[in-house]
Amino acid sequence: MIPEITQRLLAAKKEMKLSFADLEKILGRDEVWIAAVIYRQASASEEEATKLVEALGLGAAYAKELTQYPVKGLGPVVPTDPLIYRFYEIMQVYGMPLKEVIHEKFGDGIMSAIDFTLDVEKEEDPKGDRVKVVMNGKFLPYKKW
Amino acid sequence: MIPEITQRLLAAKKEMKLSFADLEKILGRDEVWIAAVIYRQASASEEEATKLVEALGLGAAYAKELTQYPVKGLGPVVPTDPLIYRFYEIMQVYGMPLKEVIHEKFGDGIMSAIDFTLDVEKEEDPKGDRVKVVMNGKFLPYKKW
Amino acid sequence: MIPEITQRLLAAKKEMKLSFADLEKILGRDEVWIAAVIYRQASASEEEATKLVEALGLGAAYAKELTQYPVKGLGPVVPTDPLIYRFYEIMQVYGMPLKEVIHEKFGDGIMSAIDFTLDVEKEEDPKGDRVKVVMNGKFLPYKKW
Amino acid sequence: MIPEITQRLLAAKKEMKLSFADLEKILGRDEVWIAAVIYRQASASEEEATKLVEALGLGAAYAKELTQYPVKGLGPVVPTDPLIYRFYEIMQVYGMPLKEVIHEKFGDGIMSAIDFTLDVEKEEDPKGDRVKVVMNGKFLPYKKW
Amino acid sequence: MIPEITQRLLAAKKEMKLSFADLEKILGRDEVWIAAVIYRQASASEEEATKLVEALGLGAAYAKELTQYPVKGLGPVVPTDPLIYRFYEIMQVYGMPLKEVIHEKFGDGIMSAIDFTLDVEKEEDPKGDRVKVVMNGKFLPYKKW
Amino acid sequence: MIPEITQRLLAAKKEMKLSFADLEKILGRDEVWIAAVIYRQASASEEEATKLVEALGLGAAYAKELTQYPVKGLGPVVPTDPLIYRFYEIMQVYGMPLKEVIHEKFGDGIMSAIDFTLDVEKEEDPKGDRVKVVMNGKFLPYKKW
Amino acid sequence: MIPEITQRLLAAKKEMKLSFADLEKILGRDEVWIAAVIYRQASASEEEATKLVEALGLGAAYAKELTQYPVKGLGPVVPTDPLIYRFYEIMQVYGMPLKEVIHEKFGDGIMSAIDFTLDVEKEEDPKGDRVKVVMNGKFLPYKKW
Amino acid sequence: MIPEITQRLLAAKKEMKLSFADLEKILGRDEVWIAAVIYRQASASEEEATKLVEALGLGAAYAKELTQYPVKGLGPVVPTDPLIYRFYEIMQVYGMPLKEVIHEKFGDGIMSAIDFTLDVEKEEDPKGDRVKVVMNGKFLPYKKW
Amino acid sequence: MIPEITQRLLAAKKEMKLSFADLEKILGRDEVWIAAVIYRQASASEEEATKLVEALGLGAAYAKELTQYPVKGLGPVVPTDPLIYRFYEIMQVYGMPLKEVIHEKFGDGIMSAIDFTLDVEKEEDPKGDRVKVVMNGKFLPYKKW
Amino acid sequence: MIPEITQRLLAAKKEMKLSFADLEKILGRDEVWIAAVIYRQASASEEEATKLVEALGLGAAYAKELTQYPVKGLGPVVPTDPLIYRFYEIMQVYGMPLKEVIHEKFGDGIMSAIDFTLDVEKEEDPKGDRVKVVMNGKFLPYKKW
Repeated sequence: MIPEITQRLLAAKKEMKLSFADLEKILGRDEVWIAAVIYRQASASEEEATKLVEALGLGAAYAKELTQYPVKGLGPVVPTDPLIYRFYEIMQVYGMPLKEVIHEKFGDGIMSAIDFTLDVEKEEDPKGDRVKVVMNGKFLPYKKW
Repeated sequence: MIPEITQRLLAAKKEMKLSFADLEKILGRDEVWIAAVIYRQASASEEEATKLVEALGLGAAYAKELTQYPVKGLGPVVPTDPLIYRFYEIMQVYGMPLKEVIHEKFGDGIMSAIDFTLDVEKEEDPKGDRVKVVMNGKFLPYKKW
Repeated sequence: MIPEITQRLLAAKKEMKLSFADLEKILGRDEVWIAAVIYRQASASEEEATKLVEALGLGAAYAKELTQYPVKGLGPVVPTDPLIYRFYEIMQVYGMPLKEVIHEKFGDGIMSAIDFTLDVEKEEDPKGDRVKVVMNGKFLPYKKW
Repeated sequence: MIPEITQRLLAAKKEMKLSFADLEKILGRDEVWIAAVIYRQASASEEEATKLVEALGLGAAYAKELTQYPVKGLGPVVPTDPLIYRFYEIMQVYGMPLKEVIHEKFGDGIMSAIDFTLDVEKEEDPKGDRVKVVMNGKFLPYKKW
Repeated sequence: MIPEITQRLLAAKKEMKLSFADLEKILGRDEVWIAAVIYRQASASEEEATKLVEALGLGAAYAKELTQYPVKGLGPVVPTDPLIYRFYEIMQVYGMPLKEVIHEKFGDGIMSAIDFTLDVEKEEDPKGDRVKVVMNGKFLPYKKW
Repeated sequence: MIPEITQRLLAAKKEMKLSFADLEKILGRDEVWIAAVIYRQASASEEEATKLVEALGLGAAYAKELTQYPVKGLGPVVPTDPLIYRFYEIMQVYGMPLKEVIHEKFGDGIMSAIDFTLDVEKEEDPKGDRVKVVMNGKFLPYKKW
Repeated sequence: MIPEITQRLLAAKKEMKLSFADLEKILGRDEVWIAAVIYRQASASEEEATKLVEALGLGAAYAKELTQYPVKGLGPVVPTDPLIYRFYEIMQVYGMPLKEVIHEKFGDGIMSAIDFTLDVEKEEDPKGDRVKVVMNGKFLPYKKW
Repeated sequence: MIPEITQRLLAAKKEMKLSFADLEKILGRDEVWIAAVIYRQASASEEEATKLVEALGLGAAYAKELTQYPVKGLGPVVPTDPLIYRFYEIMQVYGMPLKEVIHEKFGDGIMSAIDFTLDVEKEEDPKGDRVKVVMNGKFLPYKKW
Repeated sequence: MIPEITQRLLAAKKEMKLSFADLEKILGRDEVWIAAVIYRQASASEEEATKLVEALGLGAAYAKELTQYPVKGLGPVVPTDPLIYRFYEIMQVYGMPLKEVIHEKFGDGIMSAIDFTLDVEKEEDPKGDRVKVVMNGKFLPYKKW
Repeated sequence: MIPEITQRLLAAKKEMKLSFADLEKILGRDEVWIAAVIYRQASASEEEATKLVEALGLGAAYAKELTQYPVKGLGPVVPTDPLIYRFYEIMQVYGMPLKEVIHEKFGDGIMSAIDFTLDVEKEEDPKGDRVKVVMNGKFLPYKKW
């Protein structure tokens, strides 16, 4: 399921003891987006790809592949991995409430998943640290014609 | 698919010309959570249910039902509504990158979808307003035994 | 599967002997979009809804419902109706070639299905008339962050 | 999922720095149809296959394979790739309205997906370029017997 | 699953002790096509519908419904009824061999299921009568463009 | 999906420039049945297998495999190949009408898919040649006990 | 899921304190077959239906319905009821071994599920009684043509 | 789908011209159970495995694998092979009647598929030989607690 | 999805302010089993049903229904309710490890889900109370025959 | 389906004649958790991984892989292996009763499958040994916000 290039890049990243936060500094791009490039869910420019591949100590052949436009998607309809499933569950439980609130604030339309950013932050908390995931997408109103 | 009580409450809310933001002020709870109560995806305390039902000008019988523990979930495996589907797509496209970054920051475990909050904000932008969705869940490390 | 209001509006349209092309002239909106409103896949403004309902000789209560933001989608994963299935088949057969050509012309991104119009034209042809379906959607490039 | 011959041809096309538009000129066939041949969703004549393979600088063995009648179809029931999914969504949202309008204009029958052409055009627009997809299929009335 | 009008027409047919072969004579249409009209899988002309409904001793309101263009299809993906399943099994077992032979005889294309007739005959045989099903569809060659 | 032996036999058949009709004459069996043997959906006798393999200029090892009783079936629940899908669609649209007519002619039971033959004929027609598919199966009445 | 007539007949059977074994004596048919008639999975002759309905103290209208040819099948793809699931599991675990042994004894073909009987016997056993299910179907060899 | 060891054992069995009935005599176990061991749906004792492997003229390494506890099951939800499908169909058609009769004879509970035997017999019949399949499982009453 | 009788019994239980623990004392049966009877997943004896119905202040007609042998199962293949899903996830994550450990301790066989009890206990814990679920089923070794 | 490292470790464990109970003593961790590490459903610390790999007489390269955070889950939606299926059946039959009892004891929330332990015990019993499975998870109350 996981493409070979992804496994190679992750192994190199481990060897180089580089975190995604380190790569964020090197590339000037968010760590989640960089992880998406590594998983072949996003395409990099030639410059970004070269910087990334060099940081990981790999040859230029890898960079070329990272600039291609990938066929995207995870595969299994309902994810079995517990971490990923929780995001599926959030949609199952809070999907309709979210729809109501977004429509009330914005009208008929959707939040773009393309003109879109996704950030992860660690919120330290004595009762247990918290994961903060921030999604930010352009509102796209339905066109009438 | 949408329970009858939900339809009644949404109709009353419309009649009373109350927004979710108005209900947020009345109940002292976030608008997304209130929408989740109305969609029978969350259970209210007796006090919260009474406040909500009174604000909507409805009888006490409705309040009782809102305190019960619902069977949760949206139903269709892959949602067809475009607004909700985008959240499914985000999981398909960014699920694995998200997993990598969360594990790197926190170790093996998940973001809770139970000890969890969800906020929607409108970010005004001259190039088109943006939807900001903030998820905040406790990190739960895998127990070893 | 087909909502009651849709059945009522279509029956009224038949009784009034109005074609979608007639409604197009009355509303100043495309016939496919009007059909989408009738099928509760698109939401009308109050003015549009009133014009439509009056043209069909129906009461104002119907107009109100047409302004609401619907839960969208057809339902069955693979459509069994032969006319609709052909569009599914087009995606099965020409989906990947289309993806290649669009990426080559525009880069990484998608054609919006929201900032989008859809027209149907009849092309007369002695060897058998032809259906011309024109889809027109804004190109949305993937944001990097 | 993507056949080996497709990968080879696309790699050669990249190396030769040929666009689909270039191939359109060389073969005298539309670029989408050429992409369909490359993805093994359409079969070429010997002459077309030879021209294509020569343009890509590859041996005649490839040409032979391109003339065979392929087993067609993309595979996954609901596509996960966002670009392809949007076409699935269009069918989910606008499928029934389209059916109504086509039946009104043509009677009972379908738009052929076999006697069918598919074009992609880039419409430049200061607010963001637009993708124009034109489908053109013979109307096939249901035979009675 | 079976529409109400179908149940009414079949009950009336039973009461009138009319076989499909009788209806074939009255309408001048094949019995399978008439059964398809009754099951709302095909649409009749006003004249055909009137003849059919009168033969069954029913009011004109039924005729009107039979002229409408139905949403077609049986529903369950894999049929459980043994008689219908056998046709699914034939496609599972002989689908690819059929494809090979048709392509060899006709080239790349399909047998139309629209410009299509279907007949059932009873072949008497001392070892057990045989069901003969004859499908006849126009060959549609794939268009190149 | 397609077994290796099938690919080998089809390639040899192509090389020998033999049509299925030629093989029909050599084996004294119908071309569809021979295609079914090649696709490992039917088992041949030793004599039939030997004749077939010799005609294709292949060694005796292939003959042996063709005499084994295969695990039958195409695989995908809903076929995506347009030619094969049309037969699935015929069952979706005409399945229930067919059931009615067969039951009326024969009583409760099914058409056998085992004591069964399948022929394909080309019917020349100036308006476009037609594919004629003849299915012939023994009627099996339900046993009562 | 369970048809209304089935519920009526089972309730009457309970009221009359008749076991399936009692009905077996009255009708001269096996109790499993009678249960299949009651569940509308088999069709009775007029005489059988009349005897059954009279034994249950019900009116003749019920008898008529039992003579019709039903649409057969249980519905859910994988049964959730534990008793029925065990038969599904037997097919999952012993299906291929059974296929091997039947082919070895009989050649290529199947056991008919139409020319078929099914009996249930109780085998008393001090270590726990045993259920004995005997299936008996005609072997149908694959026809070659 | 079929494990490699199964293919090896079946090939050896063919070479040795041993039937399952022969193996039944050698092992003192039923032929269906032996076929289940070969298909890795049942686990043999070391002694049984050694006898089986020796009879097939194979090395001891194979015996070891046959003593392991396998992950059981056929795989595809609805089997496409016609012989195996008939058993699925029997459950679809006669599942509920069987449930009724078993409950009436035994009370609430199930037939075990673990403390269970399965035999196949050939019943010669001038009208066509018959397959007799005998299932025999311990009745397990539901425990109350 | 939830049967009407279940809703009635749960409403009565609420009205009577009886907990499952109270019912456990009244019936002398475990609270989970009693909940299973109320959800029509288990059948009660006449005496148990009468006690339960009387405790809930309902008429004898309800008792009768509770003694019948229900068609069991929850319905949706993958549960969407988060509480129930966690048990599905446990099987997804720990299913194979569990299988290994059980086989090592007991040999080839299964844990019965019929001769089986299920208890829920509340374990108080200052860091957050814990749910303890104890499953206890008879080991059933695979029979050889 | 089963990862290669799992097969290697299980083979080594067999060779070393170590039971999971032995490994429990060596690692100071429960045998089910150790089996989960081996099946790549849980991640070990470096120390734990080293101890485990050394006990199995394998090189340090294996230890490294066991410390990585795996993509978790079994795969098939409904398990076909009878031992694992029984746990799925328990959820199908007792899922809703369990939900009722847990909610009554704890309020709205779930049992964690992350802050969770799972033990298997053998309970000797003259009528047949029993499998005791103890699940113990932290109760997580739904957060309101």
